[in-house]
Amino acid sequence: MNPAPCGRDQKRWRAGVLGATGIVGQRLVHLLSHHPWFELTEVAASERSAGRPYAEAVRWHVDAPLPPEAGDLVVKHLEPSLDCDFVFSALDSGVAGHVETEFARADYPVVSNCKNHRMEPDVPLLVPEVNAAHLDALVEQKRRRGWDAGFIVTNPNCSTAGLVLALKPLADAFGLEQVFVVTLQAVSGAGYSGVASLDILGNVVPFISGEEEKMETEPRKLLGAWDGAKFVDAGVRVSAQCTRVPVQDGHLECVSVKLRKKASPADVREALRSFEVSAELASLPTALRHPVVVLDEHDRPQPRRDLNAGNGMAAVVGRVRECHLLDVKFTLLSHNLVRGAAGAALLNAELLAARGWLNADRRPAQREAPLPTEVVSKN
Amino acid sequence: MNPAPCGRDQKRWRAGVLGATGIVGQRLVHLLSHHPWFELTEVAASERSAGRPYAEAVRWHVDAPLPPEAGDLVVKHLEPSLDCDFVFSALDSGVAGHVETEFARADYPVVSNCKNHRMEPDVPLLVPEVNAAHLDALVEQKRRRGWDAGFIVTNPNCSTAGLVLALKPLADAFGLEQVFVVTLQAVSGAGYSGVASLDILGNVVPFISGEEEKMETEPRKLLGAWDGAKFVDAGVRVSAQCTRVPVQDGHLECVSVKLRKKASPADVREALRSFEVSAELASLPTALRHPVVVLDEHDRPQPRRDLNAGNGMAAVVGRVRECHLLDVKFTLLSHNLVRGAAGAALLNAELLAARGWLNADRRPAQREAPLPTEVVSKN
Amino acid sequence: MNPAPCGRDQKRWRAGVLGATGIVGQRLVHLLSHHPWFELTEVAASERSAGRPYAEAVRWHVDAPLPPEAGDLVVKHLEPSLDCDFVFSALDSGVAGHVETEFARADYPVVSNCKNHRMEPDVPLLVPEVNAAHLDALVEQKRRRGWDAGFIVTNPNCSTAGLVLALKPLADAFGLEQVFVVTLQAVSGAGYSGVASLDILGNVVPFISGEEEKMETEPRKLLGAWDGAKFVDAGVRVSAQCTRVPVQDGHLECVSVKLRKKASPADVREALRSFEVSAELASLPTALRHPVVVLDEHDRPQPRRDLNAGNGMAAVVGRVRECHLLDVKFTLLSHNLVRGAAGAALLNAELLAARGWLNADRRPAQREAPLPTEVVSKN
Amino acid sequence: MNPAPCGRDQKRWRAGVLGATGIVGQRLVHLLSHHPWFELTEVAASERSAGRPYAEAVRWHVDAPLPPEAGDLVVKHLEPSLDCDFVFSALDSGVAGHVETEFARADYPVVSNCKNHRMEPDVPLLVPEVNAAHLDALVEQKRRRGWDAGFIVTNPNCSTAGLVLALKPLADAFGLEQVFVVTLQAVSGAGYSGVASLDILGNVVPFISGEEEKMETEPRKLLGAWDGAKFVDAGVRVSAQCTRVPVQDGHLECVSVKLRKKASPADVREALRSFEVSAELASLPTALRHPVVVLDEHDRPQPRRDLNAGNGMAAVVGRVRECHLLDVKFTLLSHNLVRGAAGAALLNAELLAARGWLNADRRPAQREAPLPTEVVSKN
Repeated sequence: MNPAPCGRDQKRWRAGVLGATGIVGQRLVHLLSHHPWFELTEVAASERSAGRPYAEAVRWHVDAPLPPEAGDLVVKHLEPSLDCDFVFSALDSGVAGHVETEFARADYPVVSNCKNHRMEPDVPLLVPEVNAAHLDALVEQKRRRGWDAGFIVTNPNCSTAGLVLALKPLADAFGLEQVFVVTLQAVSGAGYSGVASLDILGNVVPFISGEEEKMETEPRKLLGAWDGAKFVDAGVRVSAQCTRVPVQDGHLECVSVKLRKKASPADVREALRSFEVSAELASLPTALRHPVVVLDEHDRPQPRRDLNAGNGMAAVVGRVRECHLLDVKFTLLSHNLVRGAAGAALLNAELLAARGWLNADRRPAQREAPLPTEVVSKN
Repeated sequence: MNPAPCGRDQKRWRAGVLGATGIVGQRLVHLLSHHPWFELTEVAASERSAGRPYAEAVRWHVDAPLPPEAGDLVVKHLEPSLDCDFVFSALDSGVAGHVETEFARADYPVVSNCKNHRMEPDVPLLVPEVNAAHLDALVEQKRRRGWDAGFIVTNPNCSTAGLVLALKPLADAFGLEQVFVVTLQAVSGAGYSGVASLDILGNVVPFISGEEEKMETEPRKLLGAWDGAKFVDAGVRVSAQCTRVPVQDGHLECVSVKLRKKASPADVREALRSFEVSAELASLPTALRHPVVVLDEHDRPQPRRDLNAGNGMAAVVGRVRECHLLDVKFTLLSHNLVRGAAGAALLNAELLAARGWLNADRRPAQREAPLPTEVVSKN
Repeated sequence: MNPAPCGRDQKRWRAGVLGATGIVGQRLVHLLSHHPWFELTEVAASERSAGRPYAEAVRWHVDAPLPPEAGDLVVKHLEPSLDCDFVFSALDSGVAGHVETEFARADYPVVSNCKNHRMEPDVPLLVPEVNAAHLDALVEQKRRRGWDAGFIVTNPNCSTAGLVLALKPLADAFGLEQVFVVTLQAVSGAGYSGVASLDILGNVVPFISGEEEKMETEPRKLLGAWDGAKFVDAGVRVSAQCTRVPVQDGHLECVSVKLRKKASPADVREALRSFEVSAELASLPTALRHPVVVLDEHDRPQPRRDLNAGNGMAAVVGRVRECHLLDVKFTLLSHNLVRGAAGAALLNAELLAARGWLNADRRPAQREAPLPTEVVSKN
Repeated sequence: MNPAPCGRDQKRWRAGVLGATGIVGQRLVHLLSHHPWFELTEVAASERSAGRPYAEAVRWHVDAPLPPEAGDLVVKHLEPSLDCDFVFSALDSGVAGHVETEFARADYPVVSNCKNHRMEPDVPLLVPEVNAAHLDALVEQKRRRGWDAGFIVTNPNCSTAGLVLALKPLADAFGLEQVFVVTLQAVSGAGYSGVASLDILGNVVPFISGEEEKMETEPRKLLGAWDGAKFVDAGVRVSAQCTRVPVQDGHLECVSVKLRKKASPADVREALRSFEVSAELASLPTALRHPVVVLDEHDRPQPRRDLNAGNGMAAVVGRVRECHLLDVKFTLLSHNLVRGAAGAALLNAELLAARGWLNADRRPAQREAPLPTEVVSKN
């Protein structure tokens, strides 16, 4: 764990969580309970929960106990009058769109896990290890929308998150042209009541609403560039097929890639294994220095056994081998609730904090915060 | 159900099952218990079971009760002295190779579900709806090996069986160039003790030994031709990734195909749905007139819900849609123990019977059996 | 299957199903689709479904296909203006109470699977094999409530249904004093969205709301008597513990009983096995002559393997052995959706039909229907 | 974690594990990898594994990675020539009997998880929180058998372990007469290949060989006394029914008890919650000060959610309520591999170490080790 960026004088940013009772929201509450930079000061949720103590309102699904300080917070309404420096949004997509906009307009930085704003032309779809430079789009976002201190940053869909992490080193090393992917996704990806047991016990459901579309479009933005005025798509073409399997947590993906430059499975394995983040990223509390973990066992990764590699923040890759149609195929696992949701948003917030984006107006002391420079050995 | 081919005078062929205690063997025993053409007269298995009544030796896994007549049979040794006109082989691959050869040499037609002889240059790898003409290779097989009444016919691997059934109409209608397939396979595909519960409860194992190789080679033979002297591979290239999921029966496959002639998803759907077998095949007791079932629901097929379509002999296809990389993608389900094993072997035996191949020497009356010509409305 | 009671001239009673889209309702629709005495003419459900074709409104969960005639029915509102001779009620308990009363008041016989009226002092809680004589209470029910042709008959809770069937022969043969029971219940017992997959995958939930109370009280009424004016409780004391397990269908129960008269496990096994229903009951289409099936295997019954014994109408008993605390213990399985719900209601309706209770006013021809006398060999 | 008993000068006892490749053996290897008192110096297993590095020989099933130092150990034969101060035995019962005797005769203290010697009249069946005084029987054991430094101490069956922990405070506070228990046991209790996935996916198996007998006899010895010459049974009568459910780890038990002294559910809850171990026990590294955890939620404990309470060493109790037949009933959960096996053996070894029993001859420095007296605040 890294200390807070120097100059902050041990004072922590105050964070709110919108949609705190949901399965991603509570994971954020859990991760924030022992975070070195952020302090959870507000939880907000739908009408049904508002006004009740969080401990009562939430049906807790995290393995660790509910943090008592969080349990005592009173759940607030989804209105931009929260006492915090920025908010995480883990809202249902039905309301996320306008609620996030309202908060941003009211000067709250919004770090969102929701799909609503992801593909907008001035909203960063951010995975720090992949496209930290996209944060520059925030200047344009504020300008266009006339927002002051507020803005919206998003992280990708849970099954895209792990995928782009494994694709990035390949795109860098060899160029990336085509991606075939079939997912075997865990039930927690659909939220608490998202998958009825009668549908999934001893069964597979070969359809997840909207998922294939997200997987086919989000990587193009993520692996592309911000040219100062707009996002330029990466040229990669993706074909995705998504299924739901009777697994609690952890999305498994069978991937095949066509590369621009010829590469053997050994080359690919090496490129993945040696992928290392910048010193700036390595200094973020939630970041891994090597976010792609490569396994050599012939039957791994497996959801139940490899879920928590890198504290749930790693993309775990195995079975790297030749593909008869494209170039190389492999199996990929990532934790859908951590790497694919709560951990992703948290890492985004950390990068924003490190770069001085977190609510300059409300926290003037923060405005001059220099970038953290020390690099702590991790992972 | 069709009556026996005319001329057979209601007399049924006597069948033996090698490897009768295994999960495929017992499925054969079950299917034979009410078969209009075949009568189960012998069960044979490994030393451990030989000499005991079948009811005692078998750990019965079929949903229906053990047929009492079968239960009373004494399990024989795996030696070619069985009292029957032909044998099914559902042996472990460790012994299937030489045992099947021994039986064929001893004048038994061998209808095998095992992998050992599948790819040999004079052994038909047979799916009647796909490549009935491959049976002609038996003449060459007998000639080369100097066998008299005996021979070996095989059916493909359980995950290949459903796949080629769906590929055949596409190859016929549009030409087939490339196939991408990811499987989600049921545990019964590995036999009774093949998958330990500790490995698969709430988990996915992204590896099945030898399975990807079979899926990448067998379709080339199946969709190819017998030119009178040798099998000519179909030009199709296949890339397969195989996984095991916590499902009891039914292999689900996510497929994408590149066709020679441009075709829309609607064209593909139509080609699959209108696929119809010949009058000869339609007259076989186990055959479906339309062996490919196309579902329109957005989230089907599902293993638990669609497993028994067409009595487990159908390839069930759903979600036919465009693919961004190849042409069209779809989801496919087939019953691994029926279409992919016991039912496949049974259908092969029926075709052999109808064509007069079943042990001409031992059953001379059979030699002149004309092809059945009537077509019974089915499916 | 038995023909309709003689004198009915092949005309079938017209049945409606209230709550037809639920998991029990659709099971009733399925069972009625090929019923010799009843014809499904109406389906009714909540506002959300009313007005739509049944095929559209229902999320079909039965293994067999949705019967096309049923699929074409338009779902009606829950109002007593249905075109049928009687109704089944498979409503949510939130509305069942007053809706059933309304229908009964409007002259519809109501055959209910709901808990709301079960324990009322003039409502038969009926399991034909156990307490057919309780039907006599209907005279009193009509008198008290001033109802004309309408009335309410109920069947017990799904886990009680199988239990009392196994207890009845023991009560008859030896007298029954105490019952210990721990249930392992399937998820379908809670309805389609009753159990979230996140709660039950690889888990057990040791609590089912209200279930233990039902199991501890309903058997006392069921095994008791109707004395002409009121129900007299059986003296038996029951202690129940109920758990939910990751099984699709089939409630398993671990039972221990204290008997009034000393009995060995062999005696108990014999009493269960020889339990036979009366000629009147045996003539009902859904009835089994021997509704308790006793297995001798050391590890049965098992939900997945023994679920469909007796078409799902049997109580399957195994492992009958001595108990160190009470007298004898055993394992019990019954199909919660058939024996415990839809099949139970159907059998109740058949008994009502046979006894001439089904809507005499609306179907005058029925009034004179003699009791069926033929006994058809079954089970 | 406690430091080593004072006087030991930071030197750790050297431990061997017999049956180290099994599922309990590897759990021991895992727990020993960071143990303050013990150091793993030897692993031994059957012929198949002997001679290979442990990392190769084992199929690792623990969530945490295989400890590298352990992985490098060469697996030894099951012969009493191991370089260690004492051995844990996690052998199959087929060989455990004579192998353990051989090691004890050769001066190794044997801390066994196996059933073979548990009920012998001079072998302690030990759960430190329940019957630490039984260790006195070792004097008699050595005398009778003529053993010098060696002896055998056992821990109970995995489902008994949690049960007696919850029964002990009740026996102490109210007296215990009768226990009714139905178990829902996890698959890991049967070892890696103990339960085939085809038997348990979506199913329950209501039989576990020998389990009910163990649960009905072991508590009588555990809750009884050592009178200086023999074990005196506790008077309690137990009736057990055991089932296997599709859960990975964690045995759930539905328990009902009859007490000598009247007690309300609240009394029982209080007795369980306030149960506290002695200062001697509290100082053992693996011990919990309060080994019974009482939950107030209405639907807990649940295997997946409460498994790791107290690092897997707690007996977790919930739903304490009145029983209509006996006095009080409740639900109980314990980790079958930790509290019920590896953790139990480890705690036994710690008590032996603390009391100076661990191989005085081989480690003379140990002989004078005073009992640890400090009490560290835990749990």
